[in-house]
Amino acid sequence: MPLEILPTDLPPLRGFRLGALDAGLYAHFGKPTRPDLTLIASASDCAAAAVFTTNLVKAAPVLLDQAHLAAQPSAMRAVLINTASANACTGERGLANAAQCAAWVAEALGCQKEQVLVMSTGVIGTHLPMPRMQAGIEQLVQSLSDSPEAWSAAARAIMTTDTRPKLAYATFGGAALIGIAKGAGMIAPNMATMLSVIATDAHIAPDLLQAMLRRAVDRSFNCIVVDGDMSTNDTALVMANGMSGVRVDEHNAARFGAALTELCLNLAQAIVRDGEGVTKFITLHITGARSVAEARRIGNAIATSALVKTAFYGGDPNWGRILAAAGRADVPLDPARLALWYNDLQLVAEGAPLNYDEARAKLHAQQRELSVRLDLGLGEAEATLWTCDLSHDYVSINGHYRT
Amino acid sequence: MPLEILPTDLPPLRGFRLGALDAGLYAHFGKPTRPDLTLIASASDCAAAAVFTTNLVKAAPVLLDQAHLAAQPSAMRAVLINTASANACTGERGLANAAQCAAWVAEALGCQKEQVLVMSTGVIGTHLPMPRMQAGIEQLVQSLSDSPEAWSAAARAIMTTDTRPKLAYATFGGAALIGIAKGAGMIAPNMATMLSVIATDAHIAPDLLQAMLRRAVDRSFNCIVVDGDMSTNDTALVMANGMSGVRVDEHNAARFGAALTELCLNLAQAIVRDGEGVTKFITLHITGARSVAEARRIGNAIATSALVKTAFYGGDPNWGRILAAAGRADVPLDPARLALWYNDLQLVAEGAPLNYDEARAKLHAQQRELSVRLDLGLGEAEATLWTCDLSHDYVSINGHYRT
Repeated sequence: MPLEILPTDLPPLRGFRLGALDAGLYAHFGKPTRPDLTLIASASDCAAAAVFTTNLVKAAPVLLDQAHLAAQPSAMRAVLINTASANACTGERGLANAAQCAAWVAEALGCQKEQVLVMSTGVIGTHLPMPRMQAGIEQLVQSLSDSPEAWSAAARAIMTTDTRPKLAYATFGGAALIGIAKGAGMIAPNMATMLSVIATDAHIAPDLLQAMLRRAVDRSFNCIVVDGDMSTNDTALVMANGMSGVRVDEHNAARFGAALTELCLNLAQAIVRDGEGVTKFITLHITGARSVAEARRIGNAIATSALVKTAFYGGDPNWGRILAAAGRADVPLDPARLALWYNDLQLVAEGAPLNYDEARAKLHAQQRELSVRLDLGLGEAEATLWTCDLSHDYVSINGHYRT
Repeated sequence: MPLEILPTDLPPLRGFRLGALDAGLYAHFGKPTRPDLTLIASASDCAAAAVFTTNLVKAAPVLLDQAHLAAQPSAMRAVLINTASANACTGERGLANAAQCAAWVAEALGCQKEQVLVMSTGVIGTHLPMPRMQAGIEQLVQSLSDSPEAWSAAARAIMTTDTRPKLAYATFGGAALIGIAKGAGMIAPNMATMLSVIATDAHIAPDLLQAMLRRAVDRSFNCIVVDGDMSTNDTALVMANGMSGVRVDEHNAARFGAALTELCLNLAQAIVRDGEGVTKFITLHITGARSVAEARRIGNAIATSALVKTAFYGGDPNWGRILAAAGRADVPLDPARLALWYNDLQLVAEGAPLNYDEARAKLHAQQRELSVRLDLGLGEAEATLWTCDLSHDYVSINGHYRT
C-alpha cells in the first residue's frame, strides 16, 4: 500500500456516510481554527467491536462507549469524533457531556442515543464546549456524504499534531474495509494506542469481530512505540454494517482477519512515520527469545529508551545503549549471547563488538529507515516493533502543545 | 548544604589520598582532552560496601568489584575511576582489562590486586586503551594528595556530560564523610544509578556499612529520575578506613546512617539539578497511596513520561499528562479521588479540574524549581522523587554524545 492514500484509491463501501467540519472547538480554546468535528454514520445497524486504552484514568468517551458497546454490540449506528479537548479528567460533568453529544447525534439521525459512540482527543482536563458541539452536530448531519473524498476529509479532521492524514483500506471479496487513524504522540504498546475507526460493509457477528480486532490490534497498534506514553482516550473501533451482503463466519474469518490486521498495520506504521518530530523509522526485530512476551518486553524497553531514541536521531550507531536498555527490561538474558545487526551489518557477537567498519555502521544509522535486530540467543521466539527517534521537534511540539 | 561545595568547606578526613589527571583516554577516542583518570587510596584497609546496577548487562568493572568485595569486604585499599570508556559489553577482554588495571594499581600501591576496585564510565562497547591506563596509573600514584583540593579535582575528573562537580560531606563526631558523584544521563530509580564514591574515616563493620548504604541509596539515588534509563555501570561505593578512631556500631548506627543518607541525598539531588539539559528541578510528592512501593511506582511513571517532562520544559501546567501517566503505572487507583497541587496551588480535586487561576498555575510551572503533589486518596503511604524536565539540550547532548 502506498504511503499516502488518495480518495481515488478507495474501494466502494456501502452504507456509510461521513462529514467533517470546523465546529469552532479549537477557536473556543483560543487556537487557530481547523476541522475539528467528524461524524461517521451507517444507514443500518452495525456490529461493532473496540479495543480501548488500558490506562486506569479513562476519558469520559471511553467509559460511555464501553457501556454502549456492552449493551447492544450489534446495533451501532454512528461515531462522533472531536479534537481540541480530550474530555478526560473531567468527572461527572465530562460523562454527562459525552452522553449529551451522543443524544444530539441520535436525535439528528433518528436512532437511540445508545447506538452512538463518541471519541475525543486533545487536551486533558478541559470540558467540551457544548453549544459548539450541538451546533456542529446539527450542521454535520446535513452534510453527510458517501464520497471517497469524505473519508479523506474525516482522516484530516481527526488529526491533532499529526502532519498527514492516515487512511488505509482493504477488500474482501465484494466487501471493503476503510480505516482512518490519528496518532502522533502518546503512542505505546499494550493498549489500543490512539484513535482509529474502521468501517466495513461485510456482515460479521460482534463476538467474532471483537476477537479479530483484538488479534489485529495486538499485531499492529500494540507493536508501535513513539514515546511510551499511554493516553486516556485510546480507542480502535470497527463497525460492520453487512450491507455488501458478504458474510464473514468461521469459514472465512482467518482471511478477513488477515485483511483487517494488514489494514491496522498500515495505519499503525503510518502513525509511527508521522510521530511527533520523527526523522527516523526504525523496525526493531527481537529474535532468539524464550517467548514472544519476553521479546516484546525487551523491544519495548529499547523503543522507549530516551538514550536509544536520541542516538537514532543523531544517526549515531551507539549500539551500547540498545544492549543497556535490553538489560533493564526485567527479562532474564545472558549478555554473552547477545548479537546485534544494523540492517545486514553485524555489529555485536557474543555481547562484544565485532571489528566492523564504523563508517559503514554510521551510514546505516543515518538512513531514514533502519532495521535493527537484537538476537538474545536463548530460544526461538521473536517479535517485531516499529518505532522512531526522539528529536528536537518532539520536545518543541510537546513543550508547547497546549499553551 | 550549599549547592556548590568548595574545598575549604570540607572537613578533615584521615588516611585517604587522591589523584586525578588527564591520561589521554579521551584523546585515544579522538575527543578533546580533559582529566579522565582518578585514584582514591586509603593508607589502611577499609571496610567497603557497594550497591550496583540491577541491569543484567553489567560492565566488566561491576563484575570485578562484586567479586573483590565478596572475597574480602574488610580489606579494600583503593578505587580507580576512568571516564571515556565504560568497559561494558566488552566480553572476556573487558574483564581481563579491568583486572589488569586493578593489578597495576595494587603493584604501585603495594597491596594485593583483590584490594583494588575499579569503576568506568563513558561509551559502551569500547575497550580501555590499556597502555594509557598503565602510564596514567603510574603517574597517578606519584601524585596522590590528602588536600581538600584533591577531592575537588577528583569530583571534576569523574565528570562526563556533567557540567558541575558533585561533592558532599558530613561529619560524625570526630569522623568525617566525603562523597563525590557523577550523573547527568541514564539516571533512573531502583538501582545504584550512577558512580559515587564516599570515603569515611569512621570504623564500621562491612555488614553494617552495607545495610546502611543500601538504606541510604534507597532514599536518595533510587528516588531520582533524569531519563529513566539504567546504566550498565552504576555503582555507589563507601569505604571506611577507621582511622579517626570513631567506631560505628549498633549503638550509634542510626545517627551515622542518617548522616550517610543526607550525604547521598545531597549528591543525588545535585545529579538531578545537573541532569543532561535540565532547566527545571521538580520535587514530586505522591501522597495518599496504599503503600510506599505503589507511591514510588506512580512517581516513576510520571517522572519518566516524555510528555510530562516536555510539559515541564515548556513551563506549561499541562497537569492532565501527570494524571494520564499515573493511570498507566500498573497500580490500582481511583481516578475520581485524584488531587493535584503545583506548589501550594490546587489544580485538581476528585479527578477533575478546579476553577483555578490559569495565570497563577503558569507562574508556578515556569519557576526553575517546582513541587508537584499528587494525592491518590487511597491510603496513608507516600513517596518523594526528584526529577527534571526533558529539553532540547537533552536531545542535542544525547543525539551527539558519542560521534
